[in-house]
Amino acid sequence: MKYSSQTVERAISELSKLPGIGRKSAQRAVFYLLRQTNEQVQALSSSLQDLKLKVIHCSICFNITENDPCSLCSSEKRDRSIICVVEEANDILAFERTGGYRGLYHVLGGVLSPLDGIGPDELHIKELLQRLNEDVREVIVATNPSTEGEATAIYLAKMIKPMNIAITRIARGIPVGADLEFADEVTLTRAIEGRSQF
Amino acid sequence: MKYSSQTVERAISELSKLPGIGRKSAQRAVFYLLRQTNEQVQALSSSLQDLKLKVIHCSICFNITENDPCSLCSSEKRDRSIICVVEEANDILAFERTGGYRGLYHVLGGVLSPLDGIGPDELHIKELLQRLNEDVREVIVATNPSTEGEATAIYLAKMIKPMNIAITRIARGIPVGADLEFADEVTLTRAIEGRSQF
Repeated sequence: MKYSSQTVERAISELSKLPGIGRKSAQRAVFYLLRQTNEQVQALSSSLQDLKLKVIHCSICFNITENDPCSLCSSEKRDRSIICVVEEANDILAFERTGGYRGLYHVLGGVLSPLDGIGPDELHIKELLQRLNEDVREVIVATNPSTEGEATAIYLAKMIKPMNIAITRIARGIPVGADLEFADEVTLTRAIEGRSQF
Repeated sequence: MKYSSQTVERAISELSKLPGIGRKSAQRAVFYLLRQTNEQVQALSSSLQDLKLKVIHCSICFNITENDPCSLCSSEKRDRSIICVVEEANDILAFERTGGYRGLYHVLGGVLSPLDGIGPDELHIKELLQRLNEDVREVIVATNPSTEGEATAIYLAKMIKPMNIAITRIARGIPVGADLEFADEVTLTRAIEGRSQF
């Protein structure tokens, strides 16, 4: 069933292309916008346009930024001897939220996935290797614990180990607050493998 | 926790103003948009702007439309003797989806809610009464079965009854497919009150 107004229909269909937004949510959003002022709708619309006009990737770590290099790479307060490698720019925010990590980052832009035609050349791996000068002591691989994420981690380890730089992988185990009873076998195996001493 | 890019932060905050879209969904949407082409982001952004530029309300029934009167009011195929009164324009779509109703509509633009300062003058009630000429046989009140919706229905009935036009209310009862066991008392009472003969 479609709306008689093509403009409404087009806005619903454009909004429902966004991940996590279905047709029903898009409908609600469009009817909400129709009740807002011109200025409010303009604010939303121009904020989305600005994403493509103003946001660029940091030429060092490929984080999203408006100034190159990004605020993390240009900060004097960060520990330049550690680089944490992540899949996407939004993973950086997850780590920054913890407040516990003070090193730098490197965004790969995805993971190795031969079936999708994504090999090492499609990711920012070359740029990572170029960053590994004498100042860098450790590379933490923080790709997701998926099959592709693990394969990418193993590939990076193989490339970086000969350079005499420590390469580590974030711990995989039982999430804090979760119940052992409901943990899957792979996670439990990883939790035992990664056990640490008191 | 905020993103280092103000543009990204602004887009997330604008998107999360939409109903049903939280900060997490807005974040995902923004990172999705950053990966799209300029043209794709432009298509979304301009479709939202067009909502306020092109979409108007039908001067007869207050449905949303791009041409006045709307396609329903100007259609030769609709039964002009019945008017179905709804709260919002999107309620029309719900009825049109059934394919069973062939009359006209009238959008009130809300419900009576004295606590929120919404009285009869804030709704399109005057315009409804002006539409009730000799051609109109029946007014179906299809406001929601909420306290305010029922109060609005009762108010409309009181206004329209003296005009010698049939005024009816949509049935409230057990939804098709639902289980009697889980129906609330008010719905069950309505279902018994509204019982019909085989």
